[in-house]
Amino acid sequence: MSFNLATILRESALTAPDRPLVHAGDRSLTYAEVDEASGRVATTLLGLGLEPGNAVAVQLPNLPEFLFSYFGILKAGLVMVPLNPLLTAREVAYHLSDSDAKLLITFEQFTGPAVAGARAAGGVPTYVVSSPGSAARPEGTHDFAELCRAEDSGEIHPTRSDDTAVLLYTSGTTGKPKGAELTHFQLYMNCTVSGEGFGLGRDDVAMAVLPLFHVFGLSSVLNVAVRFGGSLVLVPRFEAGAVVDAIERHRCTVFSGVPTMYVGLLQHDTRGRDLSSLRIALSGGAAIPGEVIRAFEEKVPGVVVLEGYGLSETASATTCNVDAERRKVLSIGKPIWGVQVRVVDGDGAELPPGEDHVGEIVVRGHNVMKGYYKKPEATARAIHDGWFHTGDLAYRDEDGYFFVVDRLKDLVIRGGYNVYPREVEEVLYTHRAVAEAAVVGRPDARLGEEVLAYVALKPGETVEPQELVAHCREQLAAYKYPREVRILAELPKGPTGKLLKRELRG
Amino acid sequence: MSFNLATILRESALTAPDRPLVHAGDRSLTYAEVDEASGRVATTLLGLGLEPGNAVAVQLPNLPEFLFSYFGILKAGLVMVPLNPLLTAREVAYHLSDSDAKLLITFEQFTGPAVAGARAAGGVPTYVVSSPGSAARPEGTHDFAELCRAEDSGEIHPTRSDDTAVLLYTSGTTGKPKGAELTHFQLYMNCTVSGEGFGLGRDDVAMAVLPLFHVFGLSSVLNVAVRFGGSLVLVPRFEAGAVVDAIERHRCTVFSGVPTMYVGLLQHDTRGRDLSSLRIALSGGAAIPGEVIRAFEEKVPGVVVLEGYGLSETASATTCNVDAERRKVLSIGKPIWGVQVRVVDGDGAELPPGEDHVGEIVVRGHNVMKGYYKKPEATARAIHDGWFHTGDLAYRDEDGYFFVVDRLKDLVIRGGYNVYPREVEEVLYTHRAVAEAAVVGRPDARLGEEVLAYVALKPGETVEPQELVAHCREQLAAYKYPREVRILAELPKGPTGKLLKRELRG
Repeated sequence: MSFNLATILRESALTAPDRPLVHAGDRSLTYAEVDEASGRVATTLLGLGLEPGNAVAVQLPNLPEFLFSYFGILKAGLVMVPLNPLLTAREVAYHLSDSDAKLLITFEQFTGPAVAGARAAGGVPTYVVSSPGSAARPEGTHDFAELCRAEDSGEIHPTRSDDTAVLLYTSGTTGKPKGAELTHFQLYMNCTVSGEGFGLGRDDVAMAVLPLFHVFGLSSVLNVAVRFGGSLVLVPRFEAGAVVDAIERHRCTVFSGVPTMYVGLLQHDTRGRDLSSLRIALSGGAAIPGEVIRAFEEKVPGVVVLEGYGLSETASATTCNVDAERRKVLSIGKPIWGVQVRVVDGDGAELPPGEDHVGEIVVRGHNVMKGYYKKPEATARAIHDGWFHTGDLAYRDEDGYFFVVDRLKDLVIRGGYNVYPREVEEVLYTHRAVAEAAVVGRPDARLGEEVLAYVALKPGETVEPQELVAHCREQLAAYKYPREVRILAELPKGPTGKLLKRELRG
Repeated sequence: MSFNLATILRESALTAPDRPLVHAGDRSLTYAEVDEASGRVATTLLGLGLEPGNAVAVQLPNLPEFLFSYFGILKAGLVMVPLNPLLTAREVAYHLSDSDAKLLITFEQFTGPAVAGARAAGGVPTYVVSSPGSAARPEGTHDFAELCRAEDSGEIHPTRSDDTAVLLYTSGTTGKPKGAELTHFQLYMNCTVSGEGFGLGRDDVAMAVLPLFHVFGLSSVLNVAVRFGGSLVLVPRFEAGAVVDAIERHRCTVFSGVPTMYVGLLQHDTRGRDLSSLRIALSGGAAIPGEVIRAFEEKVPGVVVLEGYGLSETASATTCNVDAERRKVLSIGKPIWGVQVRVVDGDGAELPPGEDHVGEIVVRGHNVMKGYYKKPEATARAIHDGWFHTGDLAYRDEDGYFFVVDRLKDLVIRGGYNVYPREVEEVLYTHRAVAEAAVVGRPDARLGEEVLAYVALKPGETVEPQELVAHCREQLAAYKYPREVRILAELPKGPTGKLLKRELRG
């Protein structure tokens, strides 16, 4: 009956103890080393009086200490609460209080808001990961090394498979952030099914530049690699040059990123660089323009870009394209193993296939969260009639592939007509000068909403806004093309690199 | 959150609908056909008023209808209760009542006891699978075809992962039979982990001669094949000639059997037969003598015999040898992925490695049952301090391999010394004339117990009992060798082919 997600680490460590699990800068750690380090953290946490089921917040960039903390928390039967490093003190306090966290692990660069937030949340004990030789820790905090002093008992707490393993706060585009309760079983299934789907194994080396505190990085990068005994190359922050260097140095086979990372890599000069080890590039988090896929595959011969779809509430992967033969560009692919996906109308009735039948994506299966922690009403709004409601709009084609047209909340309704920003953005991306595009609705007295586009240009390119309006008008129906295009130096992005439309709506 | 074990069939049917799933005599059925047939059963069962969570008993030999029933029951969210075809009317009534079964599916050959038992259990509706042109069904029973008339809705009931999928009655060597509650998650994990361990895939063709109503056949043969998209060759009853024919005809790659089946195959003349497709032979259910392994591998070049260990309560597989390189003959191998196994003393303390440290095998992990249905006290006796207590005696070596020395209840205590029958049997098997051996304790006024051996001889062989006593005395300590050897025409066996020592103890 018992199952603990940390088993994915233990079993890979038993099979191949000396295989490298993480490369981070000049540090490399084997499976046995990470297994032991996390065992030390587990022993210490329980020694501090924490009890299985208690929550521990972890606010770390992609460093080996993230893995020590994560697997240590799991092994002790505690609940991992990954926090975004960019949270303000007020937000840190909210997350700590809402999750009932008993302890916070943070990074030297974030100690200002972290310490203030931990104090505001009633004095949550705070442990700080520091670089060697860094400045003094704030008073009252502990050194992360204190969590690693106990012996590794080798024990893994026998949690039940449906116990919560991770409390993952959703980005909170509507209302306050909510903690999605992801279970040991759910996260195990997700990495097992994803790895099998892509045919990943112990010879794969995954580039981990997606933040591990986000569901895409946690589930589809970290858990998958550990489950199948592969290696991870940790890069703490996306910077195209550093990523290219690391791919070349560690012969990465898998790259996982959000579309803006692909755009960033496209703009980086890789002439003379050897990226031939890459075979799979996974894209998720937002729609990737077809133009970006084509350009990336041209730039990195031998790689296939596979788009997938998922949310925090579904432990990430929900649908995906799995290989070059069966991929459909612009589609998010088909449901993963054991997951059912439907497109439904406002009454919950399933819609037939065809691009005229756009409705909300609903999901059922092993990948759906238990619920939002301590928020039964929000849970009931999200999961009803047995289905999780994503708030994303899509249609399904005759072959069973799904196509996201947009977020329900991003939909622009202009004079009664639905305009899907993504369709307009796809057209903008085909213009030679455009690096990034985001289309939003602008309140309009007569039409309700008017279509407004923001773009950032490629380095060295110039273009007049009116040329971009004309470019769109040529290719889109009259009610769809943007009447106004605004050019910005760069578009606002969240910590995962996702474009933040809510900031553009103003 | 939801997960239904029938997903293993659905997903393989989606991936390769036209691939053969079962061969049974001259019948062959594809994945799509079994998926649809089981969907019809599911729709019908729910149409009859059964509700998710209700139990349905299935008393069938290895026929395609077993799969239609099993997956139909699972798809409807019902609980499968596999019954042994050899049960008497009184036993059928007990199992139906104890499991609260709402319906019984049985086979024409078993209708006498089945119908009487169903009547005694309060009139459980009974459906009979018949061969074409067979005699009339008993009055008051239904034709199995009635369960297949409804349309397949395609629906799979979204059970929770920890809901009971199968209620598996243990052979009941002590006390009344008890229904081990095996969950959807537990059975999924077991087939996933077993298949990965042996590297099974869609090119594998498994010989299914082990009864599917038994945990070894259900989990390690049926579920594994379906999970990985392989094929099954159903043979309703072990008969060496029929098994050899089927292996040759369908090019089986995997054979799974209990030791007596291996002995049966060894005695069968296979000169001129092509068994070269076989690559793995799994043995479980009882200890397989090293002599039998050696002889079988000599007879079938290219095959490796891999011994494993499991019980109904652990959804079968618990430890196993996984390949020729790492196998240890006479060992049951190492724990499967995600399962912990220990050898403990009478106080539950873990014993160190070494053959002098024999204790009870205890198990913890995803493979342990939820409990015995409606028997909290028996459950508490079996699972305590977080560990399931197997009642089997073993030791562990320095490399982490486990060696079963015997069943706790089979142990013979002669003059205060522990005699492990298996050790004595191993010696008997090395004698040229011995086909099968079973050692038990006989009450003795002076010593408490005396060692008594029963043997069956190979065809055409003769030997005096005293020669066998002498053979043992040469190789075993004085307190161990049997003072008496009795030669029988054949040894008593249960329905899986397992030797029944309790009948020899008299």
